[in-house]
Amino acid sequence: MSTNKNFLICGGDLRQVKLADSLIKDGYSVTVSGFDDKSLFNENVVFGKFCKETVNGADVIILPLPCSKDNKTINTPISNDIININELFSFVNSRAIITGGKITDEIKSLAQNYNLTVYDYLNREEMAIYNAIPTVEGAIEIAIKNTPITIHGSKVLVLGFGRIGKLLCDRFSALGAEVTAEARKVSDLAWIKSYGYIGIPLSALSRTIGVYDVIINTVPSGILTEQLLTLVKDEALIIDLASKPGGVNLEAASKLNKKVIWALSLPGAVAPVTAGIIIKDTILNILDELEATNIGTL
Amino acid sequence: MSTNKNFLICGGDLRQVKLADSLIKDGYSVTVSGFDDKSLFNENVVFGKFCKETVNGADVIILPLPCSKDNKTINTPISNDIININELFSFVNSRAIITGGKITDEIKSLAQNYNLTVYDYLNREEMAIYNAIPTVEGAIEIAIKNTPITIHGSKVLVLGFGRIGKLLCDRFSALGAEVTAEARKVSDLAWIKSYGYIGIPLSALSRTIGVYDVIINTVPSGILTEQLLTLVKDEALIIDLASKPGGVNLEAASKLNKKVIWALSLPGAVAPVTAGIIIKDTILNILDELEATNIGTL
Amino acid sequence: MSTNKNFLICGGDLRQVKLADSLIKDGYSVTVSGFDDKSLFNENVVFGKFCKETVNGADVIILPLPCSKDNKTINTPISNDIININELFSFVNSRAIITGGKITDEIKSLAQNYNLTVYDYLNREEMAIYNAIPTVEGAIEIAIKNTPITIHGSKVLVLGFGRIGKLLCDRFSALGAEVTAEARKVSDLAWIKSYGYIGIPLSALSRTIGVYDVIINTVPSGILTEQLLTLVKDEALIIDLASKPGGVNLEAASKLNKKVIWALSLPGAVAPVTAGIIIKDTILNILDELEATNIGTL
Amino acid sequence: MSTNKNFLICGGDLRQVKLADSLIKDGYSVTVSGFDDKSLFNENVVFGKFCKETVNGADVIILPLPCSKDNKTINTPISNDIININELFSFVNSRAIITGGKITDEIKSLAQNYNLTVYDYLNREEMAIYNAIPTVEGAIEIAIKNTPITIHGSKVLVLGFGRIGKLLCDRFSALGAEVTAEARKVSDLAWIKSYGYIGIPLSALSRTIGVYDVIINTVPSGILTEQLLTLVKDEALIIDLASKPGGVNLEAASKLNKKVIWALSLPGAVAPVTAGIIIKDTILNILDELEATNIGTL
Repeated sequence: MSTNKNFLICGGDLRQVKLADSLIKDGYSVTVSGFDDKSLFNENVVFGKFCKETVNGADVIILPLPCSKDNKTINTPISNDIININELFSFVNSRAIITGGKITDEIKSLAQNYNLTVYDYLNREEMAIYNAIPTVEGAIEIAIKNTPITIHGSKVLVLGFGRIGKLLCDRFSALGAEVTAEARKVSDLAWIKSYGYIGIPLSALSRTIGVYDVIINTVPSGILTEQLLTLVKDEALIIDLASKPGGVNLEAASKLNKKVIWALSLPGAVAPVTAGIIIKDTILNILDELEATNIGTL
Repeated sequence: MSTNKNFLICGGDLRQVKLADSLIKDGYSVTVSGFDDKSLFNENVVFGKFCKETVNGADVIILPLPCSKDNKTINTPISNDIININELFSFVNSRAIITGGKITDEIKSLAQNYNLTVYDYLNREEMAIYNAIPTVEGAIEIAIKNTPITIHGSKVLVLGFGRIGKLLCDRFSALGAEVTAEARKVSDLAWIKSYGYIGIPLSALSRTIGVYDVIINTVPSGILTEQLLTLVKDEALIIDLASKPGGVNLEAASKLNKKVIWALSLPGAVAPVTAGIIIKDTILNILDELEATNIGTL
Repeated sequence: MSTNKNFLICGGDLRQVKLADSLIKDGYSVTVSGFDDKSLFNENVVFGKFCKETVNGADVIILPLPCSKDNKTINTPISNDIININELFSFVNSRAIITGGKITDEIKSLAQNYNLTVYDYLNREEMAIYNAIPTVEGAIEIAIKNTPITIHGSKVLVLGFGRIGKLLCDRFSALGAEVTAEARKVSDLAWIKSYGYIGIPLSALSRTIGVYDVIINTVPSGILTEQLLTLVKDEALIIDLASKPGGVNLEAASKLNKKVIWALSLPGAVAPVTAGIIIKDTILNILDELEATNIGTL
Repeated sequence: MSTNKNFLICGGDLRQVKLADSLIKDGYSVTVSGFDDKSLFNENVVFGKFCKETVNGADVIILPLPCSKDNKTINTPISNDIININELFSFVNSRAIITGGKITDEIKSLAQNYNLTVYDYLNREEMAIYNAIPTVEGAIEIAIKNTPITIHGSKVLVLGFGRIGKLLCDRFSALGAEVTAEARKVSDLAWIKSYGYIGIPLSALSRTIGVYDVIINTVPSGILTEQLLTLVKDEALIIDLASKPGGVNLEAASKLNKKVIWALSLPGAVAPVTAGIIIKDTILNILDELEATNIGTL
């Protein structure tokens, strides 16, 4: 992709600051709006006032993650600016490409009123894969901090063998844990064995769940029921990485006095700089694909 | 080793609690003195008053780590008991084996007055090797917590290729970091390359030190001088694992605004249960060897 | 699954011998037909003459891999027996389950004439995953044997990131190679990076292909064209693991004097015992699923 | 080290050819003697006749590995030239540095007659470490080729935890084997556990030796006695990597019908190019150290 594009980054946190920085290093022009502290940014970033002129001059508009918390204004956690989404869309150049994270149906409707499409980078497969890296490192930090034993030599159970599950197995195993992974599909169980972990189907979980020192859930459904929790040993640490509604019956866990840590949104918390670069890489992929399919005009 | 031995654990922290627990599981008789909270212990542990009878009945006496902070009384951080070392030694059965951690020359002298030898488990090679595991996990926790990037994809420099250095390389590499290890010996540099890391002699450090995101020192001498620190990049995190006097010129680091974390005694802090088991395994090795050489009477 | 089932293994090579052995160890009754050397088998295996009675008594009939080479007789490479497929099917008990490897349309038709279904274990996902293990070990053996350099320190290119590609990356990387993997999908490139390899899209291959010491293809299409082969360095070893028509333009490679080894059917050659166990595990999965869905009567 | 040095490579095999090539690429002047096929070499290598002038002009003289097979003439396996060692030494410039592999006492004496020192690169620690890499890859090739099972999932016993033992554990474990390592020292057993393998003292070997699929010996003493061999299972493969007298009672093994492969001198056989570079790196280290200590005049 050519680098004579103007990017506008509109709102966000440290991830967007790093995103701006990284785009500058790639040779793009970058304007930011919805930030108060200019000193956070690379000196070549233009600090723009939110106005028609600023928005209209942008070829690519990047909204934060999440894009908005109220479906009315852009999420600007490190600024006092208030950026009305409707107003923003009304200013957008019709040739521009808009992308943001966690785009709700409400925001999509607003965009459609102006004949605009907002590409959601959070839906992208590669973003989800890359985000698994800081998520798993966050889980490692939690496990080291919250258990009186080393990961080395401990018995770790990973529930689910999707993106996060795969990397959890890889990393905890590399740190010397004996890793067991639960999966439903026969083919996933074959992968688990090929990589040298112990595989276990959901149906057999009740037979072994009492031996694990650390149990990490990645499945967003009630997999750790009261019945299973009863069998978990008292010293075990349960880390739930699944998004709402989570995978642990928290009420039962509390009643049974089991130690549960529900850790959400780890990438931004654990590694904001890396998370910003992940967003950038994903957005550049979106732009490449739009260019390739001639939908975009870049 | 036969299990009809009476152990007395005299003072200490959670590591000694776990040690007691683990000896019980191995089938030994265990009495403890110098603890206030009986509920911490396995129900088969005898909660003993510190007195001549208690001490005299023991075949093996285990002192904490460190054994003492004042060379006069046993270190009892989770008890209000005061155990005088002189008194303790005067009660010891002449056939008993005494072992403790960080035995000072003063304590050795006290023991000699009673014709006793105190075996220092902290001096044992295998203890130092096993302790490297929680130390390295502590360093991982620190690195994840204190950098805005993931370990995966970061450039990590390990100073020194001794016990802790070797494991640091193994673990950080497994987490996806590009690991460079500094070593003085040509043979260590050959090992470093054989295991797939980048090796660098001390003399070449100034040429590359500016690229690392995380620098971890294990060498207890002033390796990170003001001159080298000047070249370290501002965002880098320096973790010093070396015991006093450490390996970082802290004054220079502070002046240069470099981020340094000096982390000491990680095993007890990061993984007290594992640390307790490490002490137990080491003590059993000492007993085995004494038995084998007929010095002991076990 | 209950073990009061009678298995008939009809034809095959050492893999089927091991399969019989392994089923016996699991507690099943096993009869074999189409083998000449009784001494190869566990003493509890029944050496059956091929006849109506033998076939009719079987609950599960296991055909070899490949099932047949002429669509008329069962493949019996280590026997002089000739087993006519039509005759076999005419003897089968209607409640029996038949499974074999590489079932052609012709054989399926024959089976349908007798109202029988033949389940093809070679089509199973888990079989393909498990087979990747011996395939990759075969590739390792070939690479060590046919290059004058060590895998450690060499630059290895893996073409394709499917089942075999993934394991190739894992193993060659573990042996100390610098691994680059080619993939088309953005999400696969994200996985490649997450696991610590270098990712490269097909379109960029011509820029780097000259640096690799070993190139391993897993893609069954003409990925290594004359144009790309011209850029491969003369000392490089190319290993093609793709099934026919393969992925290398062999004519061009020969003309350009590039070293190519086309290695097919490695599992049976490299590890017949493991391959036999893989077939067994896959067949037991088929039986479990049939039982679960009540299609079978086991 | 400055590159205005003249190297003379005198005799040897493909490793010396590669050595010459690699020195040329580093910018040195290289003359070779004791080779017949000029086409093997880089075009910048000078093909020298063995004579006083050729030898006298050299700053560094590199003899092959082994230096000689008869203590009279240089080992020239790929040439018909006969180079008399006495004559060679008589031609050497007194400022020159001579290095060779496996220097016998007889050759040392000859050198002393001319007041010369021959530095033996085979004695160097880093050479032994680097050579462990191709040795272990050779063992991997042997194991894959000579067992009907995959390394993945197999039980592998490594006897000895020295240089080769350490790398064997690392590599076989990475390929998915369950690795047990035998060591005598308590500290080695601690290392073994830290890296995630199973450790076993020699005294306990008889209890477990019957379970291993592959047994690899690195200890040059009769560790695998008739008594132990009797307990090894019949299908097991024993690979002996120890130099003479080896570690396996071959007579007993033959009588007991155990499968033993005694593999010696693997580096030159498995990876001559890598082996040549290892020799070069080692020689450059020798020169660096001589220069540093002012013994040499380079």
